[in-house]
Amino acid sequence: MNHRSDLSALLRSGRGTELLLYGMTPPRQSIAPDALERFTAVTRTRLEQLDIDALILYDIDDEAQRTPDERPFPFSPTMDPADFLADHLSWWDRPTIVYRSVGKYSEAELDSWVRRPSDQLGTVMVGAPTSSADVRTTLPAAYDLWQRSGSALPLGGVTIPERHSSRQDEHHRLLRKQHSGCSFFVTQVIYDVSAAMDLASDYLYLCRERNVEPVPIVFTLSICGSVKTLEFLAWLGVRVPRWLRNELVHATDPVADSYAHCVTIARTLSTYCRDRDLPFGFNVESVSTRRIENDASINLVKELRTFVG
Amino acid sequence: MNHRSDLSALLRSGRGTELLLYGMTPPRQSIAPDALERFTAVTRTRLEQLDIDALILYDIDDEAQRTPDERPFPFSPTMDPADFLADHLSWWDRPTIVYRSVGKYSEAELDSWVRRPSDQLGTVMVGAPTSSADVRTTLPAAYDLWQRSGSALPLGGVTIPERHSSRQDEHHRLLRKQHSGCSFFVTQVIYDVSAAMDLASDYLYLCRERNVEPVPIVFTLSICGSVKTLEFLAWLGVRVPRWLRNELVHATDPVADSYAHCVTIARTLSTYCRDRDLPFGFNVESVSTRRIENDASINLVKELRTFVG
Repeated sequence: MNHRSDLSALLRSGRGTELLLYGMTPPRQSIAPDALERFTAVTRTRLEQLDIDALILYDIDDEAQRTPDERPFPFSPTMDPADFLADHLSWWDRPTIVYRSVGKYSEAELDSWVRRPSDQLGTVMVGAPTSSADVRTTLPAAYDLWQRSGSALPLGGVTIPERHSSRQDEHHRLLRKQHSGCSFFVTQVIYDVSAAMDLASDYLYLCRERNVEPVPIVFTLSICGSVKTLEFLAWLGVRVPRWLRNELVHATDPVADSYAHCVTIARTLSTYCRDRDLPFGFNVESVSTRRIENDASINLVKELRTFVG
Repeated sequence: MNHRSDLSALLRSGRGTELLLYGMTPPRQSIAPDALERFTAVTRTRLEQLDIDALILYDIDDEAQRTPDERPFPFSPTMDPADFLADHLSWWDRPTIVYRSVGKYSEAELDSWVRRPSDQLGTVMVGAPTSSADVRTTLPAAYDLWQRSGSALPLGGVTIPERHSSRQDEHHRLLRKQHSGCSFFVTQVIYDVSAAMDLASDYLYLCRERNVEPVPIVFTLSICGSVKTLEFLAWLGVRVPRWLRNELVHATDPVADSYAHCVTIARTLSTYCRDRDLPFGFNVESVSTRRIENDASINLVKELRTFVG
């Protein structure tokens, strides 16, 4: 087992920690057997190329209640990420961080999840997108379950730099989540590097003020190479800058533009965090189903590995 | 005369144009003779080190009417920039762009200014900060004077990326100013690279749509190494990001942080503009009177010259 295969050891290393993750969504439950076979084969080919510290598997919730806008990609329930890992990624020998949209599950289901023993698993628990959503378990209740069970799964929280720009209290939210057990954070997809730096900076100085050791913030990057992907990101609440929107409409190679911008963001944020001894990481997420965007995501991970970790 | 000494030739080169400017404010009118001598000597030592395409000399207006907030640095009338150039920078053999806060002058004064013959001078005409300000000449009237006089002075306009973020019409304003004769634009000090890219992008695609050749946008960068400088920038209307504010309060070397961020912004914007064939430039402005910030500004110009132009 190399040093990268134990997620909690990796996260325990604290200062100087630099993580590189790749995030993907399991296939739809309705996928045909032959399509599933192709998907699994393509996934394996992609993942085998990647020198990542952990794989992220998302847990998709419908979120129809979050916004009245029509969803640009139709919603279709996806496979349970832990089942997909067990049944179709059994060869994968590095850590995996399984997301849990806690509102979908009963407390008993979540309790059984967090009690799973493994030094190869972590979990990120995600609350319902709005407080009015019809949830089976709330995020505070899920955190409480994780604590009471003495879970061995490293716990991560999600964070939204854009929310910080408007409310300016996201750093306090991070510290509360850390107090509830979170040992790392993963952001929503970011395009606005200033917003991400603002959050990291406010978090860093709040930690110093409270004498708390900062934990890694993993910044999520995503190639956006089409108007359809952009619309989906906007629907997810990602603030896509005007220039990127222009490029997608006008440019001859928007995938290349988006790729270059992701690299620039990553260089800016790694310099920023390193200079301040703030542990950090990147997560490359492909939100699209287009091959060209997925291939660019794989190349992005490879390029990031040349200067992260 | 090298190719850099003729400003209009430089601006006429259009696509591929990359400018590097240094901006400074003339000394106060009330300066004592020995202090003026020292200021002039220090200025000469600084400028002689710089391989810039043009010097900018600002024309400071009180702007007391712009905001009810107290001005962090006290206002004191500064020397006329054209007089300062003639009387104290006579050795300077590269182009100079002289700002004119047009509200301070009568139409006759401005008419005589724009009729000045020179291939070594350019001018940027700046309107009053608010429409309610008590102005002697409005910006449209000043543009009109410039046109009617057949002025040989290349005309520049100011632009504010932050205004674009809130109103999203700054690109239309640029095109109108270009129609009035502007052959380049200089931004207010920027720290938010996304806002600057948004403006450049919207301007570029509007030019393409209207079949107009884009002119250079010169992005102004400024070292901000102290809370006092930050307060002054904020008073000027510059949107200083939270992280920079934090650094200035907490960091051990905020000048170095600010310097590094300026380099990052410049690299990001030059890549962006070059990839799109958009003429651009940088202007390094020192708004502070502190030596450490001024020295860092000089070093910043030198570093920018290694990859601009």
